[in-house]
Amino acid sequence: MPSLAINIDRLLKDIDALAEFTTGEGAGVTRVTFSKEDRAARAYLRQQMESAGLAVSEIPPGIMLGRLAPAGSSDPPVMSGSHIDSVVSGGRFDGIVGVVGALEVARTISENRVLLRSPYEVVIYPEEEGTRFGAVLTGSKAWSAQLSAQQLSSMRDSDGVSYLDAMTAYGLKADDLERHMFRRGRAKTLLELHIEQSVVLEQERIQIGVVTAIIGIRGFDVTVSGVANHAGATPMPLRRDALAGAAEIMLELERITRTLGAHTVCTVGQIACSPGARNVIPGEVRLSVDFRDIEKLDERWKRVLPCIDEVAGRRGLVASISPKASTEPVALSATVQDLVEQVARHRGLSTMRMPSGAVHDAQVLAPLVETGMIFVPSRGGRSHCPEEYTEPAQIEQGTNVLLDAVMALAA
Amino acid sequence: MPSLAINIDRLLKDIDALAEFTTGEGAGVTRVTFSKEDRAARAYLRQQMESAGLAVSEIPPGIMLGRLAPAGSSDPPVMSGSHIDSVVSGGRFDGIVGVVGALEVARTISENRVLLRSPYEVVIYPEEEGTRFGAVLTGSKAWSAQLSAQQLSSMRDSDGVSYLDAMTAYGLKADDLERHMFRRGRAKTLLELHIEQSVVLEQERIQIGVVTAIIGIRGFDVTVSGVANHAGATPMPLRRDALAGAAEIMLELERITRTLGAHTVCTVGQIACSPGARNVIPGEVRLSVDFRDIEKLDERWKRVLPCIDEVAGRRGLVASISPKASTEPVALSATVQDLVEQVARHRGLSTMRMPSGAVHDAQVLAPLVETGMIFVPSRGGRSHCPEEYTEPAQIEQGTNVLLDAVMALAA
Repeated sequence: MPSLAINIDRLLKDIDALAEFTTGEGAGVTRVTFSKEDRAARAYLRQQMESAGLAVSEIPPGIMLGRLAPAGSSDPPVMSGSHIDSVVSGGRFDGIVGVVGALEVARTISENRVLLRSPYEVVIYPEEEGTRFGAVLTGSKAWSAQLSAQQLSSMRDSDGVSYLDAMTAYGLKADDLERHMFRRGRAKTLLELHIEQSVVLEQERIQIGVVTAIIGIRGFDVTVSGVANHAGATPMPLRRDALAGAAEIMLELERITRTLGAHTVCTVGQIACSPGARNVIPGEVRLSVDFRDIEKLDERWKRVLPCIDEVAGRRGLVASISPKASTEPVALSATVQDLVEQVARHRGLSTMRMPSGAVHDAQVLAPLVETGMIFVPSRGGRSHCPEEYTEPAQIEQGTNVLLDAVMALAA
Repeated sequence: MPSLAINIDRLLKDIDALAEFTTGEGAGVTRVTFSKEDRAARAYLRQQMESAGLAVSEIPPGIMLGRLAPAGSSDPPVMSGSHIDSVVSGGRFDGIVGVVGALEVARTISENRVLLRSPYEVVIYPEEEGTRFGAVLTGSKAWSAQLSAQQLSSMRDSDGVSYLDAMTAYGLKADDLERHMFRRGRAKTLLELHIEQSVVLEQERIQIGVVTAIIGIRGFDVTVSGVANHAGATPMPLRRDALAGAAEIMLELERITRTLGAHTVCTVGQIACSPGARNVIPGEVRLSVDFRDIEKLDERWKRVLPCIDEVAGRRGLVASISPKASTEPVALSATVQDLVEQVARHRGLSTMRMPSGAVHDAQVLAPLVETGMIFVPSRGGRSHCPEEYTEPAQIEQGTNVLLDAVMALAA
């Protein structure tokens, strides 16, 4: 040991091939669920998996599975995989490293005729980013019955097409959702390889991140209402400027968040200002707020919330808050963490235990199956942008750790 | 004295009629230069002026004139008027009160067969708001040769049509610009009636504002560049968040401006944030900044400017500044101020001397002709919005003051 190793060149070809399945608008990769590009990516992956001897199936809500099963085994499988949808103008590694890593592990096992005791399944999730239908983790949530068919029919894209209709048009039946549902016992272990999407591994010069937990989110929108008025004729003390109020709220959110936990983060990623003319004091501003933590999530976001009304009240503005996407923090399996750490060290790789600040499908299924995640470094911590990058050697190290862990779990 | 009075019902009908010439998209009035709605408004005003016995002409760059001349008089005229273009979803009083007020003064003089010594001319300016071609005061600047034909041909609307082409399509010749140019001596006095567009008259319970000066503008755009990154996975201390930086810049601009003059104002009316996703830290933000003052304009805007680089530098961001529309502050005629104050008081109206925080065509022509402005109150100070309102009695008072002043000047 280690007797086997994955083929990084073959894996890099997969990454290059998948990066071509993009709308081509703007820089980077844009590939949304059930789009033309998504179909092409699925066709490519189907072909790769079938060539490696995997039995491929696609089931509602759009999950793609590639199964490598020892003859006669009815054990629950060890599963690994990630998502193939992207943000708009995203990178080529987010999700994809976990997909092609899981595929490459299957190919390595298959071509080396490794005899597994449990089956091994590659799993590919749709709509993790929420780019098309507006909510993250939709594929894994629908698979595990955390979203109903009715909810899927009310989630619509910008053209008004529902998730359920897009899924049906892709050839998957709503009636089959129940039958294919991911239930406790469906899998033995779930392991997801992913890029870190932050700078911690790079700054600490660590090769493998052993994920301890996945951060939870409290998402909300804030609308700040003031009085639109003439920019020249309204003296400063008489203004009720919604944008100045929003600016102060943003700084307060930032300041208070910095006083909370080491993993507490708060982001305003969207801002819209009305009426939006150079010479008019803004009358209304809408902000998106994304608050995350690994622990004490509600206790902490209740610490940041009051500043919104406080700033608005002091400035004669009115703030209203509407809740958006929310997820709970999830602790991952200690057993799997120990195993990942052990196989990585056996290969001479440096490791550190760390939480994931990004959400992942693994967290959705974690309550139903023993779950772990493996992180590889992201250059400059960049992600969700064309500059996203992980070195081939780092991807190779992460995939070899995945290979060893899968073989240990399925042996 | 006062023996004459304007007919407020007739004037209100004009306001109602002109408010109908709008694109009808959104609330309020939207009427841009040389549009279908602008043509309809001009046709209406031509008919009203001709019915009152005025000789109507339209000259490049789109100025409409209605002339009431004593037989044989070759004196330069007393002129009054304002603009008929609007902002998007603006009010029905901005500009229009000065246009229909000047028209109503002509009708009152005409129907009462008042014998003037100097001619009286109603003047209507195009493109004061800059809504179609992007720069305020374009009509009056082009009329007084502060913008050349070449500059007019490089100013384009959102469809790429130039001011010059739109003007030519309206039937006015670029070759005639020179011949009709507003030169010193073209008019004896220029008087513009306008709504205040602020809350000062209302709060002070004053009926007539005697304008002492018009505020100057330094306009610029600020682009703040940071690093777009994952909202969940990037710890707070490692962020280079362009929007958090922009928020701090906005608050600094506001704070410093409040320490400057009583009439110094600074407004951020537009903000755009990229990439603009809930779960991505903003990598770039663009702000519009509109800085105005009645005096010491450059000295003061140089006081606010350094905070932009200072905030950006401290946060690891880069800020770049590009200049936009700029106008100089202009002092109005002391003689005209005295006259307006005198005729207003003679009618028992309360007055106060005040600067204009908004720009007006009067300031463009002020260096070439003795110029004054009369303000009437704006309810709640609202302007450039559908809620803009001035009471009929207040419009009547202002127009009667205009009538008295015009008769005194032209007598």
